[in-house]
Amino acid sequence: MDDGRAREFDEAPLGQPRVTAGMRVEELVDAYAAAGGGAVYLAEAVEILTEMFDDASVTTVMGLAGAMVPTGMRTIVADLIADGLVDILVTTGATLTHDAIEAIGGAHHHGRPDPRAPHPTGAGHPDTGDRRAHDEQLRTEGVDRIYNVYLPQEHFAAFERHLREEVFPHFDGPTDIAAMTARLGEANAAVAPDPRTAGIAAAAAAHEVPVYCPAIQDSVLGIQAWMYSQISEFTLDALADMTALSDRAFAADRAGAFVVGGGVPKNYTLQTMLTIPGAYDLGVQLTMDPEHTGGLSGASLDEARSWGKLEPDARNVTVLGDATITLPLVVAGARGRMTHNG
Amino acid sequence: MDDGRAREFDEAPLGQPRVTAGMRVEELVDAYAAAGGGAVYLAEAVEILTEMFDDASVTTVMGLAGAMVPTGMRTIVADLIADGLVDILVTTGATLTHDAIEAIGGAHHHGRPDPRAPHPTGAGHPDTGDRRAHDEQLRTEGVDRIYNVYLPQEHFAAFERHLREEVFPHFDGPTDIAAMTARLGEANAAVAPDPRTAGIAAAAAAHEVPVYCPAIQDSVLGIQAWMYSQISEFTLDALADMTALSDRAFAADRAGAFVVGGGVPKNYTLQTMLTIPGAYDLGVQLTMDPEHTGGLSGASLDEARSWGKLEPDARNVTVLGDATITLPLVVAGARGRMTHNG
Amino acid sequence: MDDGRAREFDEAPLGQPRVTAGMRVEELVDAYAAAGGGAVYLAEAVEILTEMFDDASVTTVMGLAGAMVPTGMRTIVADLIADGLVDILVTTGATLTHDAIEAIGGAHHHGRPDPRAPHPTGAGHPDTGDRRAHDEQLRTEGVDRIYNVYLPQEHFAAFERHLREEVFPHFDGPTDIAAMTARLGEANAAVAPDPRTAGIAAAAAAHEVPVYCPAIQDSVLGIQAWMYSQISEFTLDALADMTALSDRAFAADRAGAFVVGGGVPKNYTLQTMLTIPGAYDLGVQLTMDPEHTGGLSGASLDEARSWGKLEPDARNVTVLGDATITLPLVVAGARGRMTHNG
Amino acid sequence: MDDGRAREFDEAPLGQPRVTAGMRVEELVDAYAAAGGGAVYLAEAVEILTEMFDDASVTTVMGLAGAMVPTGMRTIVADLIADGLVDILVTTGATLTHDAIEAIGGAHHHGRPDPRAPHPTGAGHPDTGDRRAHDEQLRTEGVDRIYNVYLPQEHFAAFERHLREEVFPHFDGPTDIAAMTARLGEANAAVAPDPRTAGIAAAAAAHEVPVYCPAIQDSVLGIQAWMYSQISEFTLDALADMTALSDRAFAADRAGAFVVGGGVPKNYTLQTMLTIPGAYDLGVQLTMDPEHTGGLSGASLDEARSWGKLEPDARNVTVLGDATITLPLVVAGARGRMTHNG
Repeated sequence: MDDGRAREFDEAPLGQPRVTAGMRVEELVDAYAAAGGGAVYLAEAVEILTEMFDDASVTTVMGLAGAMVPTGMRTIVADLIADGLVDILVTTGATLTHDAIEAIGGAHHHGRPDPRAPHPTGAGHPDTGDRRAHDEQLRTEGVDRIYNVYLPQEHFAAFERHLREEVFPHFDGPTDIAAMTARLGEANAAVAPDPRTAGIAAAAAAHEVPVYCPAIQDSVLGIQAWMYSQISEFTLDALADMTALSDRAFAADRAGAFVVGGGVPKNYTLQTMLTIPGAYDLGVQLTMDPEHTGGLSGASLDEARSWGKLEPDARNVTVLGDATITLPLVVAGARGRMTHNG
Repeated sequence: MDDGRAREFDEAPLGQPRVTAGMRVEELVDAYAAAGGGAVYLAEAVEILTEMFDDASVTTVMGLAGAMVPTGMRTIVADLIADGLVDILVTTGATLTHDAIEAIGGAHHHGRPDPRAPHPTGAGHPDTGDRRAHDEQLRTEGVDRIYNVYLPQEHFAAFERHLREEVFPHFDGPTDIAAMTARLGEANAAVAPDPRTAGIAAAAAAHEVPVYCPAIQDSVLGIQAWMYSQISEFTLDALADMTALSDRAFAADRAGAFVVGGGVPKNYTLQTMLTIPGAYDLGVQLTMDPEHTGGLSGASLDEARSWGKLEPDARNVTVLGDATITLPLVVAGARGRMTHNG
Repeated sequence: MDDGRAREFDEAPLGQPRVTAGMRVEELVDAYAAAGGGAVYLAEAVEILTEMFDDASVTTVMGLAGAMVPTGMRTIVADLIADGLVDILVTTGATLTHDAIEAIGGAHHHGRPDPRAPHPTGAGHPDTGDRRAHDEQLRTEGVDRIYNVYLPQEHFAAFERHLREEVFPHFDGPTDIAAMTARLGEANAAVAPDPRTAGIAAAAAAHEVPVYCPAIQDSVLGIQAWMYSQISEFTLDALADMTALSDRAFAADRAGAFVVGGGVPKNYTLQTMLTIPGAYDLGVQLTMDPEHTGGLSGASLDEARSWGKLEPDARNVTVLGDATITLPLVVAGARGRMTHNG
Repeated sequence: MDDGRAREFDEAPLGQPRVTAGMRVEELVDAYAAAGGGAVYLAEAVEILTEMFDDASVTTVMGLAGAMVPTGMRTIVADLIADGLVDILVTTGATLTHDAIEAIGGAHHHGRPDPRAPHPTGAGHPDTGDRRAHDEQLRTEGVDRIYNVYLPQEHFAAFERHLREEVFPHFDGPTDIAAMTARLGEANAAVAPDPRTAGIAAAAAAHEVPVYCPAIQDSVLGIQAWMYSQISEFTLDALADMTALSDRAFAADRAGAFVVGGGVPKNYTLQTMLTIPGAYDLGVQLTMDPEHTGGLSGASLDEARSWGKLEPDARNVTVLGDATITLPLVVAGARGRMTHNG
């Protein structure tokens, strides 16, 4: 075009990148940056995360929902905390439950319930029924299913002992939830055979990263806390943590939100900015939920801008896709690009 | 086939139904029952709901997540409660916030943020930017966006006055969340101009249906409660409600779960059965989230069977789709089929 | 607000509609129109379809993809054609294959492959394996599965006879695809026991509605045509139909696109407007595919506007959801609202 | 467990892998293999592709649908062909259109239509309206939009000249589609400045990989072919290619299907096995479409097993996600693992 008009396509042409044997993850991210579709948003997420991790003035709040521990994302998150890349964690009672189960010696197992694929570990043994029958069989055998992951129920009994012996007795009367999750982290660290695999709560406790868990009663951890409250003065205060979180956000030079999954951790991470004058300067969201559901989990971060949860000029992006695929990818990419590694 | 072998397709052939001008919703549901695809699951949901609503021995627990009040589903839910068809409600702080805003005279408005469609109310006025600019403009104008719905922020100020004058002063010290939501319902009823439009919490208070809200701090209602807790002895006990809920589930002859959306309301509704020997006998789930996300919101109710949250022989179904479309449809269908109307 | 400023929320407030026993489908659509979320788009679709059907000057092109005949939508489509509400049909070879199978006495059956629900027809018989094993069993028994629908393979043999005796011998040498689909419709009508259930192709032939099938070779119908071409001079011309379709679009006073599903039928319906100066004035799209896939099937109709396939002021809407649920709903709604019924 | 019972969770426990700066893509795939959720299926896809690529006895058929060239996947596919890893390509007319546009010097550009993210190339220029207005503006400026990619319409004029001068005149009368796509590849190679970037059709022509395009009339390429047919004896035979494809499949020692996107390329790739006694031994599918749509694009490959398109013991997997993210990832992973690199 030589008529001097500015037109929409006076934008950079996109590339047609190559991929090769042995390429590193950050080179793959370069390929995404040249592409269109969802790939370019993934590359943008890596850029924003790199800025979030590299800039020591950014207070990074991570919102973590979904079955991320049962599906193997536990150490990736724990390492972010241990390396000082996440300053505050907002998560679910289920995340803390499964994190502790791994710390005390339990294990999640590859399972077979997905119709889209053969058993991931190869040859299976005979099955005795259809999907419903399969779930009935699991129940009979004392195995809980989380999508394509199995968890033997006996681990919950060990988890209960862990809580009753090492965690709950430390408290009396109304307790802040974050105080309880910090103690859980210490207790996990004490029993885990290797500090490098003591998990999310342990890393947070060791590095003084607060772990907020607003819907704690909605989990096995919460049920155990309730049962203990029946035989003691112990209970949990639903509101108390908000003061420390608001203070921390207020004190932040810049603030970044790294939201994995939706639900309560996402909203609680974002709504903190309704309690202070500021808002997030950087935002990355990994979610399976498209915007058109109209639900919170799939809402774009731009929508949060209308509420004043993001700064008008905040840099933000949403990556749609399975977080068991995208989380390792963007974290590896951002780690590869960081100037100050860990 | 006349060889006497039982084969998979020795099942009823499906129909090729007609639809006609003036047909009633329950006739449309008959058409769905004859079809395949997702339609047959919608018809199954209507059948199960009809049994749940018709059988007085069923204790029905409704889990209600998502932006159901902002998108206009408030009276449909309130009527279910007022007609005695729902016995226990588990919902979010956002639902209670928006429900109260409508009760005290606020209104949600048709908005325009969706790229897939023109402005639903017709000709629009000039817009000054792209999506991001649009959300910045909304913020400047004091309008919050929830997908394609607008809410003026001034209503939040009125909501705050309502809480500070009519709700919070009724309590002192640690308070059960359900006690607070019950008082909110009474306060809403007292100010609503018409009892028929006083909303969900008001209907629940009038009919002694408990409203559980496990993640209450994750909402504007929760933020207000926290701010009030800063200037008073008031706070909320995160665990206390579980005793009454567990007792109620234990006492139920049969139990039904009607889950709209996922998140905390879904899981809290289901996990109650981990605290008692029984489990749900009937289950209907309306969700946008497909199973393959691996997340709780999209998990099939069969998965809940492996955990013992559903009885092995429970009748259950999941309807995938936008609940603003499917909720009115299945409720109208079930109401049309009930023997004992309301 | 009394300061005279125009603000975004100076839009109509949305309603909180009721649903009741015995309500008609068009009343349900009124409830959707008052709501937000996806419901308001469904109501908009009914309005646009009503205009498309009511205005005799509109040439309506229906794009029909997906397993709509196996899942029971066949008569709904055939009735639209028979009632003069659809002027041109663009569909797949699979649609015509399954439509003919029903015409010649075959039947699709309720099946059981979906993990999210019990067998739709109630108590099942013992199953002998998991999903993969189940599909192997079906193959052994000679049953093809289409999601949750079963089709005995013996019907394909009858379909082959039908084509070889009644359809292909009518032609010699290169043949227009639409000529072949018209003959198929006549042949279906001749053997169907009841003209009211002779199906889509039969209704089209009877009412001189052309049936275009651009990817015909991608179907059992196409495979049969190819096999016949091996033993005769018969073949199909891939390009010839475009002349008549373009002429028809050029002659249209106004044009409406009613697109169910995506794929080739969607694009072929829309791309016709690249061959003439005009474009579609009205558009309704029912699809499962969200826009963010970046694929054609989920692309918004606004994107088609950038290509000149829709008029700049065209009224158009996309309804996201399972078409086995939304197609009967919008057709029943539009039929209920039409001034000139059929 | 020491009671000797075989239970479901007597499966390998899954891992909690690390990700690190500088890790290679195949190491990331190792991390996925240890995880659950969708990650384990992605790892399985890499394993199956590695087998498909490494085993010279496998005839690999690639089905390629969707906007893969506009979104930058063109060279990744062309390299697979050039390296002998794909033996047969089934694709769309749109893929061939956009591939040729790049070959003759046109370019696709980063665009801005996505509401979920800021403009990927950074600071934008003022926009004059909402989404609809934006698409109207693009039309006025002569720019076509494909999700978040822009294409100036002037490239279509150059493409038309290319076809009329270099491709169509080579033929007279009814022509096999694959003959025309082969000639297109030669013509692209002749004008492309660099053979390494001559694209998909050029690579296929150079390596005698046939390119099948069943729905060719459903594309700008098809419209151009039709227009040329109006002024010449040229036309395209819809059925002729099936003979060569069937023969090739029949002759295959083992057969692998690598399906990217759904639609006609997917089904045509699979249905070939209905024309011969054999079936696919290996299958990998990358798709955005979940199974519950009931549509072809999202159907599991297990469903294809019921039709006899996959061998009962075929190794197959589906990866759900954006192919602009997953295609580079699985190809880089498989290339990293191959014993015999290209």
